[in-house]
Amino acid sequence: MKKFDVKKSDPKKLKLLEVFENSFPDRDYEITHEAEEFTSVCPKTGQPDFGKIIISYIAKEKCVELKSLKFYLQSFRNEGIFYENVTNRILDDLVKVIRPKWMEVVGEFSTRGGIHSTITAEYWEGD
Amino acid sequence: MKKFDVKKSDPKKLKLLEVFENSFPDRDYEITHEAEEFTSVCPKTGQPDFGKIIISYIAKEKCVELKSLKFYLQSFRNEGIFYENVTNRILDDLVKVIRPKWMEVVGEFSTRGGIHSTITAEYWEGD
Amino acid sequence: MKKFDVKKSDPKKLKLLEVFENSFPDRDYEITHEAEEFTSVCPKTGQPDFGKIIISYIAKEKCVELKSLKFYLQSFRNEGIFYENVTNRILDDLVKVIRPKWMEVVGEFSTRGGIHSTITAEYWEGD
Amino acid sequence: MKKFDVKKSDPKKLKLLEVFENSFPDRDYEITHEAEEFTSVCPKTGQPDFGKIIISYIAKEKCVELKSLKFYLQSFRNEGIFYENVTNRILDDLVKVIRPKWMEVVGEFSTRGGIHSTITAEYWEGD
Amino acid sequence: MKKFDVKKSDPKKLKLLEVFENSFPDRDYEITHEAEEFTSVCPKTGQPDFGKIIISYIAKEKCVELKSLKFYLQSFRNEGIFYENVTNRILDDLVKVIRPKWMEVVGEFSTRGGIHSTITAEYWEGD
Amino acid sequence: MKKFDVKKSDPKKLKLLEVFENSFPDRDYEITHEAEEFTSVCPKTGQPDFGKIIISYIAKEKCVELKSLKFYLQSFRNEGIFYENVTNRILDDLVKVIRPKWMEVVGEFSTRGGIHSTITAEYWEGD
Amino acid sequence: MKKFDVKKSDPKKLKLLEVFENSFPDRDYEITHEAEEFTSVCPKTGQPDFGKIIISYIAKEKCVELKSLKFYLQSFRNEGIFYENVTNRILDDLVKVIRPKWMEVVGEFSTRGGIHSTITAEYWEGD
Amino acid sequence: MKKFDVKKSDPKKLKLLEVFENSFPDRDYEITHEAEEFTSVCPKTGQPDFGKIIISYIAKEKCVELKSLKFYLQSFRNEGIFYENVTNRILDDLVKVIRPKWMEVVGEFSTRGGIHSTITAEYWEGD
Amino acid sequence: MKKFDVKKSDPKKLKLLEVFENSFPDRDYEITHEAEEFTSVCPKTGQPDFGKIIISYIAKEKCVELKSLKFYLQSFRNEGIFYENVTNRILDDLVKVIRPKWMEVVGEFSTRGGIHSTITAEYWEGD
Amino acid sequence: MKKFDVKKSDPKKLKLLEVFENSFPDRDYEITHEAEEFTSVCPKTGQPDFGKIIISYIAKEKCVELKSLKFYLQSFRNEGIFYENVTNRILDDLVKVIRPKWMEVVGEFSTRGGIHSTITAEYWEGD
Repeated sequence: MKKFDVKKSDPKKLKLLEVFENSFPDRDYEITHEAEEFTSVCPKTGQPDFGKIIISYIAKEKCVELKSLKFYLQSFRNEGIFYENVTNRILDDLVKVIRPKWMEVVGEFSTRGGIHSTITAEYWEGD
Repeated sequence: MKKFDVKKSDPKKLKLLEVFENSFPDRDYEITHEAEEFTSVCPKTGQPDFGKIIISYIAKEKCVELKSLKFYLQSFRNEGIFYENVTNRILDDLVKVIRPKWMEVVGEFSTRGGIHSTITAEYWEGD
Repeated sequence: MKKFDVKKSDPKKLKLLEVFENSFPDRDYEITHEAEEFTSVCPKTGQPDFGKIIISYIAKEKCVELKSLKFYLQSFRNEGIFYENVTNRILDDLVKVIRPKWMEVVGEFSTRGGIHSTITAEYWEGD
Repeated sequence: MKKFDVKKSDPKKLKLLEVFENSFPDRDYEITHEAEEFTSVCPKTGQPDFGKIIISYIAKEKCVELKSLKFYLQSFRNEGIFYENVTNRILDDLVKVIRPKWMEVVGEFSTRGGIHSTITAEYWEGD
Repeated sequence: MKKFDVKKSDPKKLKLLEVFENSFPDRDYEITHEAEEFTSVCPKTGQPDFGKIIISYIAKEKCVELKSLKFYLQSFRNEGIFYENVTNRILDDLVKVIRPKWMEVVGEFSTRGGIHSTITAEYWEGD
Repeated sequence: MKKFDVKKSDPKKLKLLEVFENSFPDRDYEITHEAEEFTSVCPKTGQPDFGKIIISYIAKEKCVELKSLKFYLQSFRNEGIFYENVTNRILDDLVKVIRPKWMEVVGEFSTRGGIHSTITAEYWEGD
Repeated sequence: MKKFDVKKSDPKKLKLLEVFENSFPDRDYEITHEAEEFTSVCPKTGQPDFGKIIISYIAKEKCVELKSLKFYLQSFRNEGIFYENVTNRILDDLVKVIRPKWMEVVGEFSTRGGIHSTITAEYWEGD
Repeated sequence: MKKFDVKKSDPKKLKLLEVFENSFPDRDYEITHEAEEFTSVCPKTGQPDFGKIIISYIAKEKCVELKSLKFYLQSFRNEGIFYENVTNRILDDLVKVIRPKWMEVVGEFSTRGGIHSTITAEYWEGD
Repeated sequence: MKKFDVKKSDPKKLKLLEVFENSFPDRDYEITHEAEEFTSVCPKTGQPDFGKIIISYIAKEKCVELKSLKFYLQSFRNEGIFYENVTNRILDDLVKVIRPKWMEVVGEFSTRGGIHSTITAEYWEGD
Repeated sequence: MKKFDVKKSDPKKLKLLEVFENSFPDRDYEITHEAEEFTSVCPKTGQPDFGKIIISYIAKEKCVELKSLKFYLQSFRNEGIFYENVTNRILDDLVKVIRPKWMEVVGEFSTRGGIHSTITAEYWEGD
């Protein structure tokens, strides 16, 4: 299994993300995309992990295109990455590409050993 | 498929909306209409989109008449428009017609490619 | 169908409401009565409307007696009145009779033409 | 609104349905497709109807291809047809195209005037 | 309150029921109408009763028209009748008007004194 | 606590049950009364037991009157009786009083020591 | 039925409540006990009432022992007391015995005449 | 961890089970005990397993006493045994002790590695 | 993407499945394993599919070991195969390895284009 | 049963907890682990207790490793400890080992004698 360095963005992943222009830039409105079919691989055991990724944001000039977001999330399918890191990694990548005023990424992962984990990371412009 | 310019209101749509006088104008009370059978068309693929539109507001002098609201929402049935834009478009149209103190429009759209989207836009008098 | 003037209280309705003395007047505690079997008539179409009325309040000296509240709500059974007006009418009548510190009335009405409506009106002593 | 004659199949609709070969013809196994986003038009009022169509069958030599089924169901979007007739129409069309051993079509339609309707029609080879 | 004789059909009620021709008389398919907003009056106490009436049938030549069914059910709004009797009354009336092969009427009534009642009556052609 | 002999009916309890004449004796239809607020006392520990009693039957000439059923069930409030016995006791008493064609009594009792119990007893005329 | 004077605590009831020492007095943490099997008697009709009592508090030096709390709540089983009064009575008794920093008592009572009531009373040290 | 031989009953476990006489032996009625807090240990990994055990039976002369059943089920807490075996083991032990006409034991075990297992074993007198 | 020939078993997959001896071969009892995290790839679009696989069987001499079942199901993660075929493929492979008296495999797949599909295949010894 | 002194940490338990380095220490994000299979023993009765432990925190430099957390929680399996104390004990141990900015531990325990208890304890750095 290919090792994934969570400290740096993967330029190939970033290229998957496409944007479109925000038609109502004068209004702060909230966009939420809930992706129920997220899967990656546990870097310790090599076993598949399953979860739900919920992305919410207030756009400035750009919105993320829905189909490209799907392909970006699918790119984690066969990579090993921890719950805590994949949630923060998705937040960093999306912030870099669409430059929102605010964004939150929630990763809800399925039960392992009787324990169910949720990671919630947030970004405010100016952070 | 007829192209829809989200930047401008469609005067034919606006004429569908009827109002009645608010009988309790001295009290700020909240009115919510939840329309579970909204459908429009995806402007990229031409495929139908389905969703729920939730409209909440505090009236000043006018309330929106329920049957006319139904016809207004039905007028999107065969038009191509993005999730982000239809939600903001409905908010702008209703604000123009009933001039509320406050209004919020939420668009909850059904799952596409494993992703479920929600758009929430708000208006305050004086904005 | 007898017309109902929402601007004025109906003295016959008010007489249905009985009160009892609040035994703990020094404590601000909340009382909620949720009436799931409310029905009235649509003044435009003459068709029956159905809904749930939720009454919450902080009493001063008087509480509303539960059985009399049931009879008061039943008195709307065959009268024509709009959603927005019946919710505010119930709030005004109860405020007049029990003089609470705070009261909220929520009317949740069943689906008509695919649209489900909720009206929420509130009163604060001193308003 | 174009009138729809429920007595006869519409050849244009039938052409939308594509099939693929059943790989396990020796085993009677059940296939169910539940389409949650069905919409057509009420032939009396011209108002849109919404519902869920559930198709179950035991294939002989052919299975219905999923994407073509979606396009077939979408072809009812702007046609006027009664609940009872659309459910039987879909059953007749699918039977004609894939010749199953058994098929059931259920149409569950959304609430109109406080009434929620379900139609269930079944076909057995040899009927 | 007017007394209601459950032994005989009320000709005025029967006249409310309209029918349309069954377009698929060669197939035994099931039609279900679930009316969630039924209300009548308790003949003993004069208090309103609330419930859900579920009508299922296999048509022969005639189907009951949905809007007329709504008006028929509304005609019980201010009449006093027991749970057991109203359920059987509706079954007898519908059988007389549409002559089905089979029909079932279920009345589910809301809680009274901590007890929730359900009545289920069935008709088979030839009974 | 007074001991309760489950082998014999208690004549005082039986007198609480009132009946009314079945208006549709020619049709076998099912009546169900679900009493959610049953309570009695554990004969071993003296601790209160709570549960739901569900009574279903096909009447011959007599139906049980709902209010009298409520009083009958309340008569167990302060008596000690086992789950298995109270369910069979209610079945025997009701059979004696209304002589049904068929009757079933289900007792669902609340959790004790992490265990939730259900007792189901049935009677057929001629048993 | 013995009359219950809600104005004064019942010393026999208070003696039922036992306490144990709080092992973490330096930390303000919240304890909630939800008792789903509460029953008392309506002082007007003599009919049993059923409900759920939810007790939440931040302890100072003493916590209420769970088994003694059960016996205390059971002591209302055959006493007549109004919803509003029993909720406040339980709050006053517990405050007297365990002297918490904060306590809230919620009484949720089962449906009577189609109306479901909830009473919420709160205490802050120093009130 | 002590090994558990599933082929033979453990006499110490059997002694935990107490019985009481069936008061209605002439009627075949069903008794169900649902124990939601079952736990044992996986014999391969030594990790705890959790589950729900549902026991249903028709008694002949004896019923199982509820408290003794709780102690019997708790006796598996620190023993290693497979899902398939513990379900059959409980069935065999209970059949030996109460000699029912019929008995079913269902073991529903919590998710391990994304897989949730259920075992259902049944006994008929004369097997 | 590697093509998958559904007509033949894949010997590498079969080797993943391990068995253990059935300790209660004289009793016909049912074993169910519900795997909620199944994923494979759509052979037409290359897009990932998600679903739940429910395996139920009555063992003869052998049971499938749970961990090996998990690895077997994971082996489909990056292979392209239709819903209908993967369900029948799993049934055939398990029948070959454990030789049960009866087995059923249900595949419930997540929504694609608004359609949710379920495939149910069954095997009886002697088929 | 070995007595457990809640006043002091158990060094053997602490050694079970392993940590890993927080890769995003500059962002305050929330991590939640919900353990649904917690069990310990009641110190008064010796009976097993069951519950759910929910741990939420904002990490500084260290995160708790998931598998070690599972073993730590399992170490309470056969020890006697009160609800209030086990919740605070877990909070104290985790704070000592990972030194978070904020942490909350919630213990939800299953129903005993009809009462369901929840304990919520919180820690802020600098407390």
